[in-house]
Amino acid sequence: MSKLYFRYAAMNAGKSTNLLQVAYNYEERGQVVVIYTAGLDDRAGRGVVSSRLDVERPARTFSPETSFAETLASRPACILIDEAQFLTPAQVRELHRLSHEHRVPVICYGLRTDFRGAGFAGSLELLAIADTLEEMKTICRCGRKATMVIRHDEKGERIFDGAQVQVGGNETYESVCPSRFYRGSC
Amino acid sequence: MSKLYFRYAAMNAGKSTNLLQVAYNYEERGQVVVIYTAGLDDRAGRGVVSSRLDVERPARTFSPETSFAETLASRPACILIDEAQFLTPAQVRELHRLSHEHRVPVICYGLRTDFRGAGFAGSLELLAIADTLEEMKTICRCGRKATMVIRHDEKGERIFDGAQVQVGGNETYESVCPSRFYRGSC
Amino acid sequence: MSKLYFRYAAMNAGKSTNLLQVAYNYEERGQVVVIYTAGLDDRAGRGVVSSRLDVERPARTFSPETSFAETLASRPACILIDEAQFLTPAQVRELHRLSHEHRVPVICYGLRTDFRGAGFAGSLELLAIADTLEEMKTICRCGRKATMVIRHDEKGERIFDGAQVQVGGNETYESVCPSRFYRGSC
Amino acid sequence: MSKLYFRYAAMNAGKSTNLLQVAYNYEERGQVVVIYTAGLDDRAGRGVVSSRLDVERPARTFSPETSFAETLASRPACILIDEAQFLTPAQVRELHRLSHEHRVPVICYGLRTDFRGAGFAGSLELLAIADTLEEMKTICRCGRKATMVIRHDEKGERIFDGAQVQVGGNETYESVCPSRFYRGSC
Repeated sequence: MSKLYFRYAAMNAGKSTNLLQVAYNYEERGQVVVIYTAGLDDRAGRGVVSSRLDVERPARTFSPETSFAETLASRPACILIDEAQFLTPAQVRELHRLSHEHRVPVICYGLRTDFRGAGFAGSLELLAIADTLEEMKTICRCGRKATMVIRHDEKGERIFDGAQVQVGGNETYESVCPSRFYRGSC
Repeated sequence: MSKLYFRYAAMNAGKSTNLLQVAYNYEERGQVVVIYTAGLDDRAGRGVVSSRLDVERPARTFSPETSFAETLASRPACILIDEAQFLTPAQVRELHRLSHEHRVPVICYGLRTDFRGAGFAGSLELLAIADTLEEMKTICRCGRKATMVIRHDEKGERIFDGAQVQVGGNETYESVCPSRFYRGSC
Repeated sequence: MSKLYFRYAAMNAGKSTNLLQVAYNYEERGQVVVIYTAGLDDRAGRGVVSSRLDVERPARTFSPETSFAETLASRPACILIDEAQFLTPAQVRELHRLSHEHRVPVICYGLRTDFRGAGFAGSLELLAIADTLEEMKTICRCGRKATMVIRHDEKGERIFDGAQVQVGGNETYESVCPSRFYRGSC
Repeated sequence: MSKLYFRYAAMNAGKSTNLLQVAYNYEERGQVVVIYTAGLDDRAGRGVVSSRLDVERPARTFSPETSFAETLASRPACILIDEAQFLTPAQVRELHRLSHEHRVPVICYGLRTDFRGAGFAGSLELLAIADTLEEMKTICRCGRKATMVIRHDEKGERIFDGAQVQVGGNETYESVCPSRFYRGSC
């Protein structure tokens, strides 16, 4: 059945790898998929979905202005969207309608929350209306499930404030369990 | 492991029944549970969790001012919260910390979205940070999974506008599939 | 979509309550459901599905000779089967075909394993071919998830041997975590 | 928590890719994993886990005689087993105890059923006692979820009989939905 799926995880769980595998599975059967990832700026252009397993492929990019309806012209068997936390709520709503009115499954991959524990706008809309929510798991350094993300500066100190998205900085991110997120240890 | 769970569903899926079953399971083993449901107004008082299967029991009520930390005094094995869509985001955050820092599982039951398809504030926070999201299913009149809710006036006409919560009105609600939500048919 | 579902759990998780809730949800919409539970002997007769929450209703019973195809005559919107671990593998296969060829969802509720940790024949077939496997959780006395079952004699001593099903005895059962199952403590 | 997981799917869903991703995630954190895949014959030797995304790495192989307890000497953070349908039931039981008594998570990947729809012995034991069952999805040529597998001979004719495992033959396999499995069309 054609539905809107949201596969969410903390960072480095393997979201992009899973997206590339799903694309492979469709194409192996001779079906067309359309792949999007977030553009780094407001202009639509060409992007790449790349996995830490060293697999990558080109993808369309979306900006807040992108309409996904044009995608239907290529009659895709599936629409795959990486970095879906950067969708606008209106785009999520468009994708939801599109999956039900045009019978094309849409699979979105993304984070739930930023380094402050605040939900991304696109993710909140996906969590609210996606037909199926599927968690992809990764682990904290303590071995328990990591569901939160923290940000470190270039010296390895944890940062609690700042913009949700930092382009071109030296920050690093770590997926952690809630104990480490709240108390700093686990 | 002690975690914050969000068991979400459209209306009439059986959320309250499940809550009452979980309470029974704990108590059958001689363990204490604390049950909350939403108060109808801003004053905390006494409430009831009732199931359409004709089972019910008294519950504490929460208002936006309720702090759940006091609950720990009774050393509960589990905290159960019905109508969790009415929690404030700050309360959800408190419950998340509490489940991890005081090792008590917290299970919240609630709707994701209102009759306009907009997320409830408490639900959005639960969807963003709960450790485990579990869907409880119900069906649309077409037999497919119902994930959305629509509101009808007393004449059975669908209403698209109005307050998120209507106290004391004659409106009725129906759980529907996304096709019926968007197009009015399925 | 019409599928064969297996909702499995250890004992006392709330399987029968869930079945009764699903039946209620369908009937509330004016749809017909057919409910079966296992007969205590080889003759088909009348049975009861009863929940520890003190809700119950009559049900058809199945024996190893029961054919479920006759059920289609009443044009059910859903077929619900309690104690599904007692189905024969051939009956599971019949239900699987029936759900796909006649477009009626079939929801089976049952245990996975007996007090020795051995799978029930009907459950193994359900686990192998059901379209959707859904776990219903209950807890061990230690608070962790219980996935196994142990049997005690009338003095409370654990029993390791004996028939898979004991009719009319004084044995009691307890749902436990794997640690308690293997080591006797948790 | 250390548990025995069974991630099951029809063929070509991406099981090996997921295994390689999990291994990467652990090793990225400086933790040790042990990877096994099935040996093609009865002698333990060296094997390879390879993904259709063109990623691969060496793995230990297991035969029906392999004991997994020796694995603990290397103090793994996780044990990963590909082609787990070829485990013996006794090996599955050993892995279950090991995960709970030695607190090491064990993640098994495998098929549920063969081309005749019959469960593999190792898979049936995993389905019966694994602590967590997780489905990995792939699609039938009709676009619906594929849960069954069929075998074709070198001319593309479907084969209904024969050995469960065919080594060195020219047969090919296809993951299909139950409609195609039972009726030959979908």
